[in-house]
Order: sequence, then structure tokens, then C-alpha cells
Amino acid sequence: MKVNSKHYHTVWYEDGTLKIIDQTKLPHAFVIKELHSVKDVITAIEIMEVRGAPAIGVTGAFGVWLASKEALAVKDFEPAFDKAVKEIRAARPTAVNLAWAVDRAAQAVKAEPQLEKKVQAALATAQLVTNEELESCKQIGLQGVKLIEEIAQKKNGRPVNIMTHCNAGWLACVDYGTATAPIYEACERGLKVHVWVSETRPRSQGFNLTAFELGQHCVPHTLLVDNAAGILMQRGLVDLVIVGCDRASRTCDAANKVGTYLKALAARDNGVPFYVALPSSSVDWSIGDGVKEIEIEERNTEEVLRVTGLGQKGIESVLVAPSTAKAINFGFDVTPSRLVTGFILERGICPATEEGLLKLFPEKRRE
Amino acid sequence: MKVNSKHYHTVWYEDGTLKIIDQTKLPHAFVIKELHSVKDVITAIEIMEVRGAPAIGVTGAFGVWLASKEALAVKDFEPAFDKAVKEIRAARPTAVNLAWAVDRAAQAVKAEPQLEKKVQAALATAQLVTNEELESCKQIGLQGVKLIEEIAQKKNGRPVNIMTHCNAGWLACVDYGTATAPIYEACERGLKVHVWVSETRPRSQGFNLTAFELGQHCVPHTLLVDNAAGILMQRGLVDLVIVGCDRASRTCDAANKVGTYLKALAARDNGVPFYVALPSSSVDWSIGDGVKEIEIEERNTEEVLRVTGLGQKGIESVLVAPSTAKAINFGFDVTPSRLVTGFILERGICPATEEGLLKLFPEKRRE
Repeated sequence: MKVNSKHYHTVWYEDGTLKIIDQTKLPHAFVIKELHSVKDVITAIEIMEVRGAPAIGVTGAFGVWLASKEALAVKDFEPAFDKAVKEIRAARPTAVNLAWAVDRAAQAVKAEPQLEKKVQAALATAQLVTNEELESCKQIGLQGVKLIEEIAQKKNGRPVNIMTHCNAGWLACVDYGTATAPIYEACERGLKVHVWVSETRPRSQGFNLTAFELGQHCVPHTLLVDNAAGILMQRGLVDLVIVGCDRASRTCDAANKVGTYLKALAARDNGVPFYVALPSSSVDWSIGDGVKEIEIEERNTEEVLRVTGLGQKGIESVLVAPSTAKAINFGFDVTPSRLVTGFILERGICPATEEGLLKLFPEKRRE
Repeated sequence: MKVNSKHYHTVWYEDGTLKIIDQTKLPHAFVIKELHSVKDVITAIEIMEVRGAPAIGVTGAFGVWLASKEALAVKDFEPAFDKAVKEIRAARPTAVNLAWAVDRAAQAVKAEPQLEKKVQAALATAQLVTNEELESCKQIGLQGVKLIEEIAQKKNGRPVNIMTHCNAGWLACVDYGTATAPIYEACERGLKVHVWVSETRPRSQGFNLTAFELGQHCVPHTLLVDNAAGILMQRGLVDLVIVGCDRASRTCDAANKVGTYLKALAARDNGVPFYVALPSSSVDWSIGDGVKEIEIEERNTEEVLRVTGLGQKGIESVLVAPSTAKAINFGFDVTPSRLVTGFILERGICPATEEGLLKLFPEKRRE
């Protein structure tokens, strides 16, 4: 995807260095940051310089590469490596991609018997994960665009209005995005689309990131506060909702950015199709009841009490509550599968049921 | 109600002058403002220095008093007066209280045959409306507290968790509030309550006003972003939702601050009772289908694109989106009566149906 007409990935390896687009500065400044250590990687994930389930998975895998380099420099490889891997894995709890990608890279390191080749094994796996996630997102676009094409046919040239939440765009992935991949593909095919971008307080990834992305790609879009999702649907102004996912249960309950559940309720109440777009790396096959079992991250309440934006003197933060106020800050919520019309995955679109998912992933069927 | 332990009303007449608490400065500064002209009144309502359905109704009635004074100063009373009344009435479209209170004061002026007594007639009516709204809010508290008492009995000493939206507190009224009146009354009676205060973007009246009010009255409360309402209910952390109302249809559809509908959907999905508290001046008996018929105000989109708070140099505003972004800004949404457990009015609590409402207001029954 492009920024100021130049092609970028969200996370990439270049000349021996891991680089990311610093998402805490967008849309007001476009900053590329280098991550040189395990500590850099953990901090970048924790403070969300890199965020989005696929993107933190890939970054975590590269973190394992850095962990193997750092462990090589100390006397005893294994304990140092194991400790670092555990810490990277725990940087954020809700997205399953992080644990999945870190485990995969760590296993490659463990499986490599020669100490001097472990670093290369980690790097190769991180690059493999990157390419797989890239390909998954591309495929999600090719699958999901069919939904948009169907609606476009009924709209006789009027734009298809798609609502999304948070940023499940290319910034959340390596490229293409998950929820945005079908939208970008639709634009490529010359379909008329218009995107409703929901703010996504507390961190406002909708306004900061999704609006930035869509603007860079000339996709028509309009911003709304999270509260306005209901009235837009009541008035027939939304044809389709597509959101991303940080962790899905095998029964298709979907943990995503807090507020997704409210949009799903409004979609159901107004007969608007509600789709979750995700790579299969976001499916946690071990979980049956997502609402009960998926761990929901609680984040620093300063995110709720303060808002950051562009002030007269650059990027500033303002207090938006009485100075003595206390807050709560759940990062995610879980949308029960009964509210989800379908899942859009790299292998296809399926109903949001365990059986629907298993038809696409028969290798996951239990005996 | 009290600010820094001193008793205040939101809007009041003192020594020949109309005064308001300037709600655009809270919670960071407590400023009292004088309104000396019709123009002052219209601006105060438009830019929301005074807001909340009952409070703008009362302010509008006092505006009619100022209109009568200004009309007396010109040669031809009636055209000048009619023009001013029309302008005050149109300052904000959604809350019915404004039109209702303005019409009432204007009728009193028209009914007074002696030109020199018209000003006095307007003032007397504005004061009457003020006292009636005060008394209604007090009664709403006495009626609604029964709901809290019932839940408190089941909770065995644990606090009753009440969620509200926007500010339907004393700042929205003259005193007591509508949604908050039962909460303040419960505190008076020594019941343990805890209030979930939702931010209410774009203007954040929850954080700016409701948190301020509750803090001044030592009512335990916690702040949440609007997106978090669903997960709190999913987790059983909400016992009761009480919101205010800007205009209700006779069939009990309720227009209130945008986002109310999403909370009602979440409450229904999780079996949480959802009540609307309102004085009968907020019922528009002429409207049958609230979702279709209530006019929803669209406001300046700068409210969406910018956030105001306390910065390092005082109250500042920051841009929270790309500088080229466009937004939409509906001020309200309508919650269909099917999602409302009941209405809390000055005469009692009723099911959210036309029949329920008519049992409390039999004089409104049509032949």
C-alpha cells in the first residue's frame, strides 16, 4: 500500500534491521522507526507503535529473531532465549496471532540443532510468517470483494456504503488489511464504494489510521463518532459492515476492538449484513465459548481520560474529564457468533458457525 | 444542587438578569454567564452554553421575556416579538421542551392585552415553567428511586451499578436532573450506588458534565468510552440503565443523545432494565412513530473532528483526524419503545407504550 504514492509495508526487514511505521504519530506525522532489541519490540507492541493482530504477530516473530541474536551473545542460550520469547508473547494478551507467530518462530529456533544457525532459522520463519500474512490478506480481499460486488449490482451505480470499526487496514497487517482488503480490491475493480469510519475511542484508530489509509488511496469515506453507528443503520445508510478480529473462537465468536459488539447489535437490529474478516492465524481452535474464554486486555485508563491530537504546537494531549475522575479501559469486546453473518477468510467466506469454519479448514476437524 | 458546596441552579433569574452556568467550560472552569438579549439566548442555546431539554426550555421561556422587552423598545410590538419568538424556538430542533416552553410564554404575552404588562406576563410564565420543571425533576427522583431500592434489596449491600449516557443531570435541567434524580435521591436515602459514566462523543457531556456533577455530590462513579458499554453489560457489571430524553413520541419512542440507541440494544441483549427519565414536557403527543417523525439535528462536524480538553496552557482543542477528513454529526438518535423497559415521569413509572403513558396522563386520551 502507498503513503504519499510510495509503496510501504507496515513492518519490514531491510538491510539487517527491523523497521515499522510508528502508528502512534499518524495521521499527523509519518515516522519510520527501527527496532533493534527485544526490549524495543516489546515496547513497540505495548505502546502500540505497531498494532493490529497480524502486524503484531509478524513483529513478534521478528522479535524472536532479535531474541535469538541476544541469547547468542550470552553464555547460556536457552534460558535467555526462553525468557525473551515468553516476554514478547505476553506483550499483549488478546490477539492470538502474537502467541501463534512467536511460538512458530521459537519452535524453528528450537528445532535447529546448530547454535550458529538458530538466528537464521528465526529470521527465515519471521519472513515466512510475513509472506503468509501478506498472501492471506490478499486472498481475503479476493474473497470479500464478492460481497461488495453483489451489493453493487443491486445499487444501480450508487456507491456501496461499508462501515468498519477501528483499523483492520493495511496498517494492522503487513499490507492490504483484513476488513479493508475487500474494499481496496473493490476500488481496483472500479466499483463505487464509500466507507463509514468510526472513531474508535479510546485510541481513535478509526480517525487516526483508517481515515489516513483510505485518504492515501483516494477511497471516499466519512468519519463518525462511535455513537452514531446506530442512527446511520436506522436510516439505511449502511449496506454492509466489515470488521477485523483479534481472536476468534472455533465457534466464530469474535474478539475485536471494544465497540465492535455494539455495531453488531445495531447491524442485526437493522438487517445489515455483518462480516468479520480475518486470516486463519486469528482463529484460536482451542476456544469454544469466546465470550467466556477469550482474555480481554485492560489498558491504562489514561487512554480514556486523555485525547491526543494536533494542537497549535504539534501533537498534544488534553485531559477530557475532571482531574480526579477514574476510568475503566477494556481494549476489546467479544461479538457472539449469533450476531455475525459470516467470516471472510483467505480460503473463502463461511457462515459464522463451527461447521462453517470446519468446511474451510477440514484439517482442523477433531476425531 | 451544589458546586463547591454552594447551591446553584443551571438557569436562574436574579436582580433583573438571566444567568446560566456556562456548560462549555466545565469541568475545567466554573463560569457564570449573563444573557442580556434574545441574541445572547439564541447563541447560548446554539453553542450549548446551556443544553439539556428542560434547561433549554426554561432558557427559551426567559428568552421570550427578553423578546418582549426588546419588542417594547421598537415601534411595532407584534412583528418584532413574533420574529424573535420564532428564532428562539428554532435555536435547536430536537428537544420539544424548547418549542413547548417558548410557545407557552409567548401565549401568555399574547393573552395579556395591556402592552406595558406583557413583559411581566412573560417573566411570570418563565418563572412558572422553571418551578414546574424543578418540581417535575424532584418527582422523577422520588418515582425512580423505587427501581434502585428494589435492586438494592437483591444486592445485599453491594452497590447498585447504574449506567447513564450524556448528561441528563441537574445541569441539563434546573436542578436534580432527570436520569440522575433517582440516583441523587438514592444517595440521600443512604443506598449504595455506583454510576457508569459514558463519554458521549462528540461533545463528551458524560465526562465533562455528568462526572463533574457526580463528583461534586460525592456519588461513586467510573468513566468509560462509549464503545465499552456492551462489554460492561456482557460481564454483568450493569444493573440498570437510566437515560434522559429530548423528545418522546406518544408511543414512547425516545430521542436522546446519539448513542442512546446502542446502549438500549446492549441492555436488551443482556437483560439489563433500560429506563428513560423525562418530565412530561418532553413528550410530543403529536408524534406516533418517533424513529420516522422526530427531526434529528445535524451539527457542525468540527465537533467530531476536534476534541476540547485541558492542555498545558488551559482549555485547548486538538484535531483528531487527518486535516482533509470529512465527518457526519447527528446530535441524537431515537430508541424505539420496544427496547425501553419503562418511562420514569413526574407522575410515576409506566411501561413504554402509548397505553402505559395514557394511564398516567388520562387527560391526553383522544376520543
